[in-house]
Amino acid sequence: MIDNEYYSEENHGPHETFELGNFPLIMGKTLPNAKLAYKTQGKLNDAKDNAILFPHMYSGTPKSMEIFIGEGRPLDPSKYFIILPGQFGNGFSSSPSNTPPPYEMGKFPHIMIGDDVVAQHRLVTEVFGISELQLVLGWSMGAEQTYEWAVRYPDMVKRAAPFAGTAKTTPHDFIFVRMHENVLKSDPAWNGGFYKEPHAVHVGLRRHAEIWSIMGVCQEFYKREAWRDAGFQSLDDFNRGFWENWFVPMDPNNLLCMAWKWRNGDVSLHTNGDLAAALGRIKAKTFVMPFSQDMFFPPQDCEEEAAMIPNAEFRVINSLWAHFAMFCMTEEDKQAIDYNLRDLLAVPA
Amino acid sequence: MIDNEYYSEENHGPHETFELGNFPLIMGKTLPNAKLAYKTQGKLNDAKDNAILFPHMYSGTPKSMEIFIGEGRPLDPSKYFIILPGQFGNGFSSSPSNTPPPYEMGKFPHIMIGDDVVAQHRLVTEVFGISELQLVLGWSMGAEQTYEWAVRYPDMVKRAAPFAGTAKTTPHDFIFVRMHENVLKSDPAWNGGFYKEPHAVHVGLRRHAEIWSIMGVCQEFYKREAWRDAGFQSLDDFNRGFWENWFVPMDPNNLLCMAWKWRNGDVSLHTNGDLAAALGRIKAKTFVMPFSQDMFFPPQDCEEEAAMIPNAEFRVINSLWAHFAMFCMTEEDKQAIDYNLRDLLAVPA
Repeated sequence: MIDNEYYSEENHGPHETFELGNFPLIMGKTLPNAKLAYKTQGKLNDAKDNAILFPHMYSGTPKSMEIFIGEGRPLDPSKYFIILPGQFGNGFSSSPSNTPPPYEMGKFPHIMIGDDVVAQHRLVTEVFGISELQLVLGWSMGAEQTYEWAVRYPDMVKRAAPFAGTAKTTPHDFIFVRMHENVLKSDPAWNGGFYKEPHAVHVGLRRHAEIWSIMGVCQEFYKREAWRDAGFQSLDDFNRGFWENWFVPMDPNNLLCMAWKWRNGDVSLHTNGDLAAALGRIKAKTFVMPFSQDMFFPPQDCEEEAAMIPNAEFRVINSLWAHFAMFCMTEEDKQAIDYNLRDLLAVPA
Repeated sequence: MIDNEYYSEENHGPHETFELGNFPLIMGKTLPNAKLAYKTQGKLNDAKDNAILFPHMYSGTPKSMEIFIGEGRPLDPSKYFIILPGQFGNGFSSSPSNTPPPYEMGKFPHIMIGDDVVAQHRLVTEVFGISELQLVLGWSMGAEQTYEWAVRYPDMVKRAAPFAGTAKTTPHDFIFVRMHENVLKSDPAWNGGFYKEPHAVHVGLRRHAEIWSIMGVCQEFYKREAWRDAGFQSLDDFNRGFWENWFVPMDPNNLLCMAWKWRNGDVSLHTNGDLAAALGRIKAKTFVMPFSQDMFFPPQDCEEEAAMIPNAEFRVINSLWAHFAMFCMTEEDKQAIDYNLRDLLAVPA
């Protein structure tokens, strides 16, 4: 365990914790005293039929998803009970940074997307007694979890909204994410995952931020200097104030845990590698929503998956913020996302 | 100076050398006893009106361009006198690896695209007495040199074919190339540019190859496993056998020299930053030819520049090989390039 003040309630708000006990992992190890940290908004009704599940993306926490929730918006907490589960490796749920020996830091076991979804399923059913979810949605790794939910528990998921993510990691995405891992590990301070100070690996974290600066938005974003809309004064101001500011405070092993999980995401593990068969299981009304200029989840990849889902619509959201449209740095991005969620929630299911 | 067997005639064929003497550089230093290594094919006719200039790309040498030359093809050495100049930093022309103190290795001065073009202009005029070039063409950094030629010496360039490159480096391209430099320097063996062994920096060179694996081709290339067409057996086989095999033997300072030059390329330096004014100078019939899925020279960036050139056509070449279509790994890519060059050379100019 290593104490990094980034993972504090001061930064991320309070969490509830669901104790999972000794949690068997898909890859064969058992995570002792595993925990799932989560937040909720709104109130579960008596019929228990107003629940929405909203897992988060790489490098995020449940707080990251709160920007989509608000009265009068599609994710309205006066109407819905919204569960924001924390994925393993996020620094609040069981993670390299908060797990005691023998699974601490560099020895934290590999986690699969399916492990998160099984833990979330236990939360939803055991803690809340919910048997159907009106909507499961997420962005990027949140989309991976959404697909895993819809394939693994097709009768529970009424609607699904995977934004800017895929059900099976593409080879290009795989090598892109592997490079995150490689540059984090390239810092000698990483030391096999056993650094002594929480911010010892800042050089590796800066390299990691640099890859994101190249692939996280799009070419045109930089040409149009769209970073000005977010209040930055220059390209380097944006690189420091946005990319490094976001990633550098984090725990590198936590990011490595999530990165490995991301690039090994694949719902066709349920069907011996047959992706069409896996996606064919989905019963949810599904809106597949890539961002137009996403450099690692290009719309074409999402469209090919949408074609394999029985009841899917393919809706591209246009934004210069590309993969990071989900940060809602512009009012247009926020409204485009809300517009589609409103449509989806209006579909009878 | 450091002796790296990669830069041998055995690997790259024989070069001629033009001694430039003490060569004043745009950035203010003087390169002592500078040299321009070059190759030629074909024979200059008596009228001296059959010359083509074909500078090369990042990490290349004149040999890299020979795959486009052949009897019966547009670049026909029985018809044209084709000059293949080596850019500074390529390991044969003046470069960090072959320059003696005080400008050796990590102290080699910054070179601009304009420096290469001035040296090439001296070669063309002083050595060959040529006053007009039927065609200047190049790919990537070769396109940068092509644009610089057409803007700097508009009366000399009859036709121009910039493939997959820009006249002014875009901000996205700038941060992409800067990351090449950063990962090369991230290897402690780089040691400020003063490594003791020519291949000491192989870890940095591998990281550099890894970025290329992510951005050098395109997402769909990997999804379709297009590397199979080039004889590779697996994704990792391709990453070793193509990307690492290409870059890892090279001198890291040489790559750093070319990378810095690349990302500072900008013809609007001639016109106080007014790109339209600079491109407006071009008199050449110009075919602007991006590759359809190029991740760092996207067609849109090239199209915006084409619109500023008085006599330009915009022609996109489709290839899964994206930026690397110019390697002609498939017969289709080779034919698409030849097709357009044939058209351009047929235009009266």
